[in-house]
Amino acid sequence: MNAGEMAEETPLVRLDTSALEAAELMASRRLPALVVVDKAGYPLSVLPASQVVRFLVPAYVQDDPSLARVLSEKMGDHAADKLAQRPVRDLLPYDREELPVAQHDDTVIEVAALMARLRCPMVAVLKSNRMIGVITASRLLQTAVTPRDERDAS
Amino acid sequence: MNAGEMAEETPLVRLDTSALEAAELMASRRLPALVVVDKAGYPLSVLPASQVVRFLVPAYVQDDPSLARVLSEKMGDHAADKLAQRPVRDLLPYDREELPVAQHDDTVIEVAALMARLRCPMVAVLKSNRMIGVITASRLLQTAVTPRDERDAS
Repeated sequence: MNAGEMAEETPLVRLDTSALEAAELMASRRLPALVVVDKAGYPLSVLPASQVVRFLVPAYVQDDPSLARVLSEKMGDHAADKLAQRPVRDLLPYDREELPVAQHDDTVIEVAALMARLRCPMVAVLKSNRMIGVITASRLLQTAVTPRDERDAS
Repeated sequence: MNAGEMAEETPLVRLDTSALEAAELMASRRLPALVVVDKAGYPLSVLPASQVVRFLVPAYVQDDPSLARVLSEKMGDHAADKLAQRPVRDLLPYDREELPVAQHDDTVIEVAALMARLRCPMVAVLKSNRMIGVITASRLLQTAVTPRDERDAS
């Protein structure tokens, strides 16, 4: 099995995708992160769901979490409006997480080594410089702990 | 809505659970991480799937990733045996990731503030000092971007 065969489809967003659209994708498909690609489909960065949550918390609450207790439950009412006004670009962390990249003909052990070295939970798979999918750590474990004959049969 | 209502069930493992059992849980349910609890059900740590992948990569390949290319595809054949011999305890990173903890009566905004401050994708929810579930960042976004009337109807 190579990286191309292990890769799974994932929703892609662009820097100018609305943050609300990104949040709705994460919410409805329960994704921990989205891959941000450029116009040519090359992966630029990863937007973690926790970063979107961070954007929803007012700065004064981030500075003094005890204020959260006294706030009424208004966050949900304004979250959609707040997100609708911003593109994904504005939500990316300053220290952007780079998405590690594997080639479609890399072996399982090459992908595992990359993941291990960078301690990352997800790797983008490229073919002819275009992203064809991602391999998550749990997907890699699925390949690694499934006996070879079961894998071949499925 | 409070943290107890948002919390979702997640599989729990103990320090002495076999690493193979943990890997199989991650593989079959496609989980990015498992929560490790003590005998009383109190959360101790998080075992990320990427850490299990790391354990499967031989040290000499971690040191020199170019060796991965020349290795044959044997990892899968030995992965299960290698994992079966170790408890979860041995796979936890030295700099253990602490799982942030919320109380069941915390508000959505309190959970969001905790997640934002610690930049973590998952929070354990406690009731009477026992873990009743987790809230992931995507679950929190689901609450935040769903209009209140739709939430009440569901």
